[in-house]
Amino acid sequence: MAGTLLIGQAGGATAVINSSLVGAIREAQRHESFDGIWGIRWGAEGLLQGDFIELGSLPPDTLTALSGTPGAALGSSRRKLSDEEVDVLLDLFRRREIRTFLFIGGNDSADTVHRVAQLASDRNQELQAIAVPKTIDNDLPMTDHSPGYGSIARYITIATMDSAKDTESMPTMYPVKVIEVMGRDAGWVVAASTLGKRESHDAPHLLCLPERRVSPENLLRDVARIHQEFGRVVAVVAETLRDDQGRPFGDPGSSEDRDPFGHPLIRGTAAALCRLIQKELGLRARYDKPGSLQRMSMLCASSVDLREADEVGRAAVRLALDGQTDRMVTLVRDGDEPYGCHTDSASLANVANRQRVVPDNFITADGKGTTEAFHRYGFPLVGPEPLPRYVRLGDVQR
Amino acid sequence: MAGTLLIGQAGGATAVINSSLVGAIREAQRHESFDGIWGIRWGAEGLLQGDFIELGSLPPDTLTALSGTPGAALGSSRRKLSDEEVDVLLDLFRRREIRTFLFIGGNDSADTVHRVAQLASDRNQELQAIAVPKTIDNDLPMTDHSPGYGSIARYITIATMDSAKDTESMPTMYPVKVIEVMGRDAGWVVAASTLGKRESHDAPHLLCLPERRVSPENLLRDVARIHQEFGRVVAVVAETLRDDQGRPFGDPGSSEDRDPFGHPLIRGTAAALCRLIQKELGLRARYDKPGSLQRMSMLCASSVDLREADEVGRAAVRLALDGQTDRMVTLVRDGDEPYGCHTDSASLANVANRQRVVPDNFITADGKGTTEAFHRYGFPLVGPEPLPRYVRLGDVQR
Repeated sequence: MAGTLLIGQAGGATAVINSSLVGAIREAQRHESFDGIWGIRWGAEGLLQGDFIELGSLPPDTLTALSGTPGAALGSSRRKLSDEEVDVLLDLFRRREIRTFLFIGGNDSADTVHRVAQLASDRNQELQAIAVPKTIDNDLPMTDHSPGYGSIARYITIATMDSAKDTESMPTMYPVKVIEVMGRDAGWVVAASTLGKRESHDAPHLLCLPERRVSPENLLRDVARIHQEFGRVVAVVAETLRDDQGRPFGDPGSSEDRDPFGHPLIRGTAAALCRLIQKELGLRARYDKPGSLQRMSMLCASSVDLREADEVGRAAVRLALDGQTDRMVTLVRDGDEPYGCHTDSASLANVANRQRVVPDNFITADGKGTTEAFHRYGFPLVGPEPLPRYVRLGDVQR
Repeated sequence: MAGTLLIGQAGGATAVINSSLVGAIREAQRHESFDGIWGIRWGAEGLLQGDFIELGSLPPDTLTALSGTPGAALGSSRRKLSDEEVDVLLDLFRRREIRTFLFIGGNDSADTVHRVAQLASDRNQELQAIAVPKTIDNDLPMTDHSPGYGSIARYITIATMDSAKDTESMPTMYPVKVIEVMGRDAGWVVAASTLGKRESHDAPHLLCLPERRVSPENLLRDVARIHQEFGRVVAVVAETLRDDQGRPFGDPGSSEDRDPFGHPLIRGTAAALCRLIQKELGLRARYDKPGSLQRMSMLCASSVDLREADEVGRAAVRLALDGQTDRMVTLVRDGDEPYGCHTDSASLANVANRQRVVPDNFITADGKGTTEAFHRYGFPLVGPEPLPRYVRLGDVQR
């Protein structure tokens, strides 16, 4: 094999993406099969510019500290490479004797790795190009789940429990709370908010999933009904939420407000919903928008997620050493209780540019909650550490 | 003494307000001097209606669980009592033999307790009325700090460190991050965001404190300068931020958007700043608005804060047993290193309707950061537990 191993991080950072980097470095060090272990600064941007740093000699305690640091320590970007740029990249790889390329990222990054692998094959250039799954959106196909999801799921579960306690404390002043969460066009993060729900009057009382578009009229009807029933409403909504006509509730911005892969950057969804609820129902509504915090909280990181992020990094190195290319590491679930998962891999042709949304059997028939099947799926991912158990005094309703 | 002890919670809930309740209950149980220990549902609203629940027989394990539960377990409200209502209330107290009244809250609640105590004295009615300090705003006078502040300070410190890692990960895509935090007209929570800052390029790079109003032009100049210097900007701003003309950056809403004490409810400050920065500087700006989460996170609760919240609850009971009335429990600092604090009390005449903003010697001369004096003040409050230590690979700037 030999040659240099090059590792990069791409797309939105998470609490565990550095664990995948550390797993890959440690596995590569263990095998002593590479001439060097280098990292790419700033994702696809630095990749093109050959902006690399040496990683193989990082001391063990730095690697350990890195696993405890959220964010993409190498730097990341959202940069779509043109076909010409992929060609230039492969020249660079040949020149610098880079024969293994690992890219830790989501759907867009998987597409980049796929195109690099394909062109290398066309050029007959020796290259093992492997995608390492990472996305809090949890929308990568072919894998049970993606590293990053378990931690954001744990964050959103606890955040919903915490925020609900505020709404329970002062329901006459602030009866409606909207929590705006990430997840692009998939509702996995929205769904995670239900993992701390034990009784019907527990939050969240209403989900707005991208998979189930809702008219403003029906949404208002739901809020009014829940307020009537429980005296308060906690709704968890996707930041990309669109109504039944496909119009975003938030501000779709200008056409420049797109990332390089063409995904629109919708803003202000929760704020718009609060204005709508206040205007039409006369109920004071406030929102929490944890923003980056939901992706970056090491305090809420799931230990299962941290371990699996490390494992997918290691598995990528082993796949490359095994002579594989154009593949993504996957996680295959062995069981829910006890929970078990092992790594495998899938062809990138089956991954790139495909998106896995929340399946129908995970969403209740009314489209506003999650099923027991989702709970079986989600619970193990938020880690074996228990969720908070909060208590109440007296009746929960005024 | 004898008679019934009545305890309530008022105003915005925190992660530690239940600890003050538990401290008061346990201290009252220990003294066996009361005929009953009762709690008020829904703050001043339930107070008027005589909506009380028995607390004295709560089992010890429920009390322990309650200390670990964020929010106001009795329920809270923002309700200003008229003079006539205070009179009616005192009739109720006499009828139900309530001779001790503890109210856990902030400035507005202190005013309520003060008026109740004054009228009881005028009416020659036996009543020990004691305010127990609670406010994440940390703006109560006469006390070194208020229970609730240490925990939100710890939350905001860690949130700023976490969110900064996201901005560091992808500075070309999202160079500007605005974190909108609470604190009403005082910048204590904004200031807390600096407690994790170790080097000049660490976040936050810019504070917008209510104590230092800034023109939109100067704000934009600062953002552009910091972006030039570090390649990224993390700004922490007060949700109530006003410009140098006194105009809110956010939406001041209608005149109905005031709480019963007349405080305006400004909305969308960070969103407005992001639009301004994007429009005028062409820099993509995003915001985090942790909203209720910053007040309610038990994961980030400071152990110092939890302990002191319990202590002020206990001290209130001892003051009442000592025959005191019309007073608020205070915290007096014995030293920074090692940190120590003891409880004392102050006359409510010196507390009610007064607000303590961040003093000049805690704010840097340019008005955009905090001083070493603030760090000495703030560090002990976020608890002896260490703050995260995150690592970096390579240069922090592109």
